[in-house]
Amino acid sequence: MSEVVDKAMKAREASHKMARLGLIERNNALNALADALVKEEDYILQENALDMDAALNAGTDAALLDRLALDSGRLAKIAAGLRDIVALADPLGRVISGTTLYNGILMRQVSVPMGVVAMIYEARPDVTVDAAGLCLKSGNAVILRGGSMAFRSNTALTKVLAQAGQDSGLPDCWLQSVETTDRSATTELMSLHGLIDLLIPRGSGSLIKSVVENSKVPVIETGEGNCHVYIHSAAEAAYILPIVLNAKLQRPGVCNAIESLLIDSEVASAYLPSIIDALTDEGVLVHADEQAMAFAASLPESQRALVVEAAEEDWSTEYLALEIAIKCVSGLDEAINHINTYGSHHSDSILSQDYDAVQRFLLEVDSAVVYANASTRFTDGGEFGFGAEIGISTQKLHARGPMGLAALTTGKYILEGTGQVR
Amino acid sequence: MSEVVDKAMKAREASHKMARLGLIERNNALNALADALVKEEDYILQENALDMDAALNAGTDAALLDRLALDSGRLAKIAAGLRDIVALADPLGRVISGTTLYNGILMRQVSVPMGVVAMIYEARPDVTVDAAGLCLKSGNAVILRGGSMAFRSNTALTKVLAQAGQDSGLPDCWLQSVETTDRSATTELMSLHGLIDLLIPRGSGSLIKSVVENSKVPVIETGEGNCHVYIHSAAEAAYILPIVLNAKLQRPGVCNAIESLLIDSEVASAYLPSIIDALTDEGVLVHADEQAMAFAASLPESQRALVVEAAEEDWSTEYLALEIAIKCVSGLDEAINHINTYGSHHSDSILSQDYDAVQRFLLEVDSAVVYANASTRFTDGGEFGFGAEIGISTQKLHARGPMGLAALTTGKYILEGTGQVR
Repeated sequence: MSEVVDKAMKAREASHKMARLGLIERNNALNALADALVKEEDYILQENALDMDAALNAGTDAALLDRLALDSGRLAKIAAGLRDIVALADPLGRVISGTTLYNGILMRQVSVPMGVVAMIYEARPDVTVDAAGLCLKSGNAVILRGGSMAFRSNTALTKVLAQAGQDSGLPDCWLQSVETTDRSATTELMSLHGLIDLLIPRGSGSLIKSVVENSKVPVIETGEGNCHVYIHSAAEAAYILPIVLNAKLQRPGVCNAIESLLIDSEVASAYLPSIIDALTDEGVLVHADEQAMAFAASLPESQRALVVEAAEEDWSTEYLALEIAIKCVSGLDEAINHINTYGSHHSDSILSQDYDAVQRFLLEVDSAVVYANASTRFTDGGEFGFGAEIGISTQKLHARGPMGLAALTTGKYILEGTGQVR
Repeated sequence: MSEVVDKAMKAREASHKMARLGLIERNNALNALADALVKEEDYILQENALDMDAALNAGTDAALLDRLALDSGRLAKIAAGLRDIVALADPLGRVISGTTLYNGILMRQVSVPMGVVAMIYEARPDVTVDAAGLCLKSGNAVILRGGSMAFRSNTALTKVLAQAGQDSGLPDCWLQSVETTDRSATTELMSLHGLIDLLIPRGSGSLIKSVVENSKVPVIETGEGNCHVYIHSAAEAAYILPIVLNAKLQRPGVCNAIESLLIDSEVASAYLPSIIDALTDEGVLVHADEQAMAFAASLPESQRALVVEAAEEDWSTEYLALEIAIKCVSGLDEAINHINTYGSHHSDSILSQDYDAVQRFLLEVDSAVVYANASTRFTDGGEFGFGAEIGISTQKLHARGPMGLAALTTGKYILEGTGQVR
């Protein structure tokens, strides 16, 4: 039997035991996990240093190195994240619906754990701890498959967390990481229909695409964000610059930052000059359509160089960088149609004081989160008050938008009778 | 462009228009569909007769022929089914959750259509109408891929329904069926990630398995039911025979009928003789374990011949016929473990008056529906009060157990602000 199948079978067994744990037992274990991270700091940082050395030697870029690196402060913060999960409400045992059937059977639908949750992700040691903590709180057994660059860090973290959990009363194999390093292990993990209840890929678009296309196990797709702000002709002038700059600049590398700006042609001359000025002043490369391009003419030379002609592919590009596409549209219909055609159905916002225009935008834009007169940057489990975020789902099945702990649970119908037959 | 891609793109366009329809428009269209089925009866029955002739010539078995056959009475009943859907509550626009965020943004999560729903099924013309009606009520565009044996019937039904819908104000291409008859069309349908939001296979286990394993589009798995009744040592004697016979015999060919009976060894001699007598008297073939086998000795010869030794594979077999597996177990632990190991996580029932045993069974059996002291035959959208049933999900993502109209919807977060930035 392969390592992956063996671990999945053990996880299935552990999942039955996990499902019986009460909130106090799960919370005590979470605290024990946090304690262990602090206690085993030397071991964890030493393994992380070996990963860092290898990554440096391999010429890894600075951004990736930064995601991989752990130090005492980061580890303490990660441990504090586990304690934050303790404070969250129990996602299990919630009565979702219930009634007495016509025949006297008492029926209720209750939230229960998924069972075995697997996660495939890249070189992010913090995801290892996060995933373990969220799955534990929601009563699931976990199988982790992290990126090879963080192999030693993840193995060390999993070892420390798994042991601390067991010492605190969790079943053997409640948390396991896959040690086979070649791709066959990932492929096998995706094939274990019936042993794994849910697979969550976290990371780059190409990782997620590959999992979605190849998995036989149910997947929740997270990620891609080609988000828009649309400035309608009746937009409140005072909202425009703050929202556009916030949505683009506050953190350009995340999925809820905007990639495209749409503006009604009739108000383009009123607002676009100052918008393009402000964006280029911040170093943003602007991919402008023909009409928008004209407003760059009066910019200082250094900023004007940052305004280039947009190509068709710009409308569907997720830059995740200091770049934006700007298009002038004929009105609400074209804006909605553009967003539904080129967007990624993540987060899109209309700026308008026109009641009917706002209502239509909110109804007709087919995205996980639609906004009126606010920045798209609020699409986030923390901002939504979920306390923890597993990811942001851009699919429509099971969970859509920011996912809290509830996304790691499913429903179970419990029917209590007194001898009823049909 | 292939037929399938072309139709999927048209369905996507139609889905945006479907999402804007109010309840009255959708209900009016449902009534128009029902009227059209009655009005176009001659055409539909004539096409069905051609399917029936071909199926007869191909030597199709009687059960399949019966599923394929339409007549005036059946068509009227199918039309009445559409009118029943009119009476159901609107699954759309329901506020699932909502709050005011710390920054004053008003947030609500509202139920909205999935978008484009595709269904792959076998030779059942009634499924064509059912799927069209349920997707219409829930504001979705539909693509249907029926079995080749019902090709003419399904084409005729889709044509009549699609036209009636359009005449009643639904967008073009709200309902389409795939006309390419070879397998490539099915494969293509399963590959259209991004164009199709949800794929539901309905039919045999092998059809469902193939779709689950090959689809890149999110799938809801329906179907397999290896259900159990477990007679605990503290079972109420008066409940036993009625529930066992109902669960096995009331309709043996459906997924919520039981396939296995478990009984505590200590009460086997008290109950099994009469159970085996009653089952074999009804012509049920009993696959008995060693202990259960012994109770067959005193049966009349004709019934004794119906009791055979169980093999390991019997514990995981879905007979869907007059067959049952019987196993004596040492108690609650073995029963729960057996069900979680061999069952299909569909519907399982404990018969017991022991409070703690019942609680443990309900908590620890990992099935979509768990019962105490009632027949498993109640696992059904109609029995649960859902009014309509799309299928019974045996997976844990999105929907688990009987699925009503809500399973064809997803959530959308709507955030209304007054200039908030992060």
